[in-house]
Formats: sequence, C-alpha cells, structure tokens
Amino acid sequence: MPAIAIQREGEVVLFDCGEGAQRRILSEGIGLNKDTTVLITHLHGDHVTGLLGLLQTMSLAQRRKPLRIVGPRKLKDWLKATSEILEIGLTFEVEFFPVRQGVVLRTKGFVIRATHALHSAEAHSYLIEERGRPGVFYPKKAKRLGIPEGKLWSRLQKGRSVLVGGRSVSPREVSGPVRPGRRVGYSGDTRPSSRLSRFFSRCDLLIFDSTFAGRDRQKAVERRHSTCVEAAEVAKKAHARKLALTHFSARYASVTPLLKEARAVFQETVAAADGMKVSVPYPET
Amino acid sequence: MPAIAIQREGEVVLFDCGEGAQRRILSEGIGLNKDTTVLITHLHGDHVTGLLGLLQTMSLAQRRKPLRIVGPRKLKDWLKATSEILEIGLTFEVEFFPVRQGVVLRTKGFVIRATHALHSAEAHSYLIEERGRPGVFYPKKAKRLGIPEGKLWSRLQKGRSVLVGGRSVSPREVSGPVRPGRRVGYSGDTRPSSRLSRFFSRCDLLIFDSTFAGRDRQKAVERRHSTCVEAAEVAKKAHARKLALTHFSARYASVTPLLKEARAVFQETVAAADGMKVSVPYPET
Repeated sequence: MPAIAIQREGEVVLFDCGEGAQRRILSEGIGLNKDTTVLITHLHGDHVTGLLGLLQTMSLAQRRKPLRIVGPRKLKDWLKATSEILEIGLTFEVEFFPVRQGVVLRTKGFVIRATHALHSAEAHSYLIEERGRPGVFYPKKAKRLGIPEGKLWSRLQKGRSVLVGGRSVSPREVSGPVRPGRRVGYSGDTRPSSRLSRFFSRCDLLIFDSTFAGRDRQKAVERRHSTCVEAAEVAKKAHARKLALTHFSARYASVTPLLKEARAVFQETVAAADGMKVSVPYPET
Repeated sequence: MPAIAIQREGEVVLFDCGEGAQRRILSEGIGLNKDTTVLITHLHGDHVTGLLGLLQTMSLAQRRKPLRIVGPRKLKDWLKATSEILEIGLTFEVEFFPVRQGVVLRTKGFVIRATHALHSAEAHSYLIEERGRPGVFYPKKAKRLGIPEGKLWSRLQKGRSVLVGGRSVSPREVSGPVRPGRRVGYSGDTRPSSRLSRFFSRCDLLIFDSTFAGRDRQKAVERRHSTCVEAAEVAKKAHARKLALTHFSARYASVTPLLKEARAVFQETVAAADGMKVSVPYPET
C-alpha cells in the first residue's frame, strides 16, 4: 500500500498514506511530531486508509504541530465524519488544502505543485520542489569589495545582505545565480500522458505508477494504470534524472523483468520496495 | 492493532479488524474466500480500520461468499459511506448484524454471543461456542442392539439415526450425552466486571484486555482498560481453561513482567503476540 516519505532537514512530505503507513513511519524512525505534509493523489482505499491510524497514533504521541493534508475535497468530509464516528480525538489541528492545478502549497522547505492524472477516479500527480539555494559564493569578489572573511561571508553565503563601510552588499554581487532546489515527482495511479511528461520536466527523482509489465499494456489501459515501459517513457521525455518504479501488481512474482524492460528505455531506473531508501543528491552545477 | 482469527474446519471468525489485518490474513494463509464472520467490539480506530483494506482486498480476490459483520449499528453507516467515497466496489454481499445482548448469530460451526463491556465508547465482548459434538459412542451397546460394525456405527457416531431390523435406533441409545463444543471468549477493550466473569464462565480460551501492568491500575481505571492482574482475576472467577493476555500498552518494553503478575493469579496464562498461534484442544471428558 503506497506511502512514500520525503525527508529533508526535519521536514516530512508523505506521498499517499496507505494502510500500515503509521507502522512504517515508526519502524523507520521518521517521527510522528515532524513538520509534516500529506499529499493524497486520489480517494482509493489503498492510498488513504492509513491516514486514520496515523492521525490516531500522532494523537497518542501528543502531537501539537498542525498536520497539513492536501487532497480531493471529499477527503476532508470523509476524515471529519470518520474522526467523529471512530472518536479519533485529535491533539493537533488538521489543515486541509483541496488539491488544484498549479502551486497548491508552500511549506518551509518546499513548493508543492499538482496536476491532473488519468485514473479511474479523480486523481492528481504531485511535484515537490525544494526552495532555491543561494548561488555559488566567489571569495575573490568578496575580497575585492573589502568584505572581511568570517561572519559576513557566512551571511552572504546564506543569501543575506551585509553592511560594509556604510553600504549594503547583496549576495548577488559576490555569488552566482540562485541554484534551483531538487525536485521529486510522484504520479500516483495514472495512465501516462504528455501533460505528465511536461509536469515532471527535469525532476531529480520521478516515482511513477508501474502496475503492469509491458506485455500487459491492454490491462493497464483498462484499469487506468501504467506499464513499466510507459513509466520509463515518461521519465525519458521529462529528462528526469532518476526513475523509481512503484505500485507493482501482485500478479508478478518478481519485479526484475519489469525493471529490465524499463531500463531498456530509461537506464537510471530502480524498482521501489517496502522500506527502500533513495537519496536525491544535488545535480552537479 | 487487534485482529484475532479463530479457525475451525474452514470457517473463520475474526475478533476485531485493526489496521494491517489483511496483510496478516495473507501472510498466515488464512484465506480471503472462507466462510467468514467479523465481530467488532467497538468503534475505535485501532479495532476497525483494517476492515476497509480487507473488504477491498477480498474484492480484488473476487470473493463471492457473503461476509458477515457483527458490530455497533454506526459501523454499518460508516462502512457504507466509506465504501462509496473510497469506491470500494464489493464483489460480494456484506451481511450486517447489529450487536445485541445474548445470541447474536448462529453460523455453520458456532453460536455467537455478546454482552456489554465497560469502555470509554459503547463496547461489547464476544463468546463463540462451537456447536455440540455427539456423545461418546459405546460399541457394546451397539452390538447388544444388533447393529453391525461399519457404516451404521459411523452414522451413529456422527449423531445420526440408523434403521436396523425395521426400527430406528437413535444415537442416544448407543452414546453418552452430547458433549459441549469448545468456547473462546474475547473481551475487547474493557474494565473487568462480574458480568464478564459470568459471561466467560468455563470458556476454553479467554482472550482479555491487558493494556496495563498491575501497578498502573489507576491508569487502567481512567482509560477504561484492564490490568494483567485484573484479566487473570476474571479468568480465575470464570474458571477459564486458558487465558491469553493481549492489547499491551506500548509503554512496556517487555510484557514478561505482566505475564508473571498474571500467572501469580491464574497459572494457565500466555502473553499474545503478533502472529502467535494457540490451539484450543477439547477438554478431557
């Protein structure tokens, strides 16, 4: 059941929240009291039922920070009705953001975008983009402007202006252009589309529906999922840096053949598995 | 999260259905297409949220047999609303039986009884009783009545009448009294009570709330749970044959001290654990 946590400097973004998510969050030491945003792609049981246990366990852990949830509007109604019937007494606030095209939310560390996916229910894909980093710092330029090494350099490197000899020096005078942050995309359940290839353009990690093998394309069409080959084609068109196949059908005893098929199209592919960790390095600049 | 399966001759009774139940049902080979009855004690998330995934996965497995669910009335409404919102298209019928005092349901193999438990929400305890077995067969009596050994003896041993020399011989003429079936009780979340001690009278296996250690009795009173010692006291008063402690609070790193405390009161005690199997033999007669 899908539940993919993106961790960055104490902040957590969760792509979907399938059954068992809370157990994995505990066993992987991700933490119940983090600055957390949950992005729900669509309202099929295997993608959302883990929210109930997560909300309850966060309350048992006396969470105080608000929890942000992004998803289809009906999700809010269902969570409200269910929390009442199941008496999930929350110790924290749930901030609900209905999903929409474009920028959905800005958190401390990320800008979160969504677009339409193509599934049997209303479905969305998400792209999270790390806020930009200050540009490369040039010590020579700083010296030329008479800025002494130390505290002031450090301020400039963090993208803040400093006062030197009565005048304000902006980081732009001593640094290269702001470098874009890393970007991670998640398709949820979907058919491939040119919209998605554009949406995921140049992302550093693309996590994509790979329910079926290439030979079962007809089933993928009928059930509104993607094949491993189609996932690889999206990654290729999007010029993604890395692809993680996910959401494999239980019909395949091994996912190795699916991985091979995808790699023939897009080499930088891995097959996701429960508990797998993938790091997303900054691109070389 | 509680989910306890009782298996007997192809029939399954599930006490509660916490998150992750479907996963365990698959990994233990219990089967998704069995003659199954789910007994829900109360509507707290950790006891019911696993139903959603179970219903969905049973449908994916093309279940056709109806599924019986017993529980508080509101459960039916919640399941209905949730199945619609989450588009859980069932391939089988859900037969819902609102829980009530006394006999709730008779299945092929069991008579299912319920009584009031004492928790922070409306809560119930269940007792399932195997249908009675034919009495001990006496070959001497059969021979005296001129019944030839073989097929006819076998029929009589199964509790059916036979025709011999033009007259009907009933099993009672060649057997001892009908022997009661085995009985398994499950408290759900509850304080102990004299009502429960009577309800679980002489059961072969009692599965009882043991959230807290004896020293944390005050917490058990406040949160409407039981301590391991109180669970053992109920088992003792009920003259149960065996006690399984369950639902331990995560605050205890080890449940061994709780087991010891309980055994000081009621020797035949085990501490339940995820995936544990307990067999319930017939009592010696």
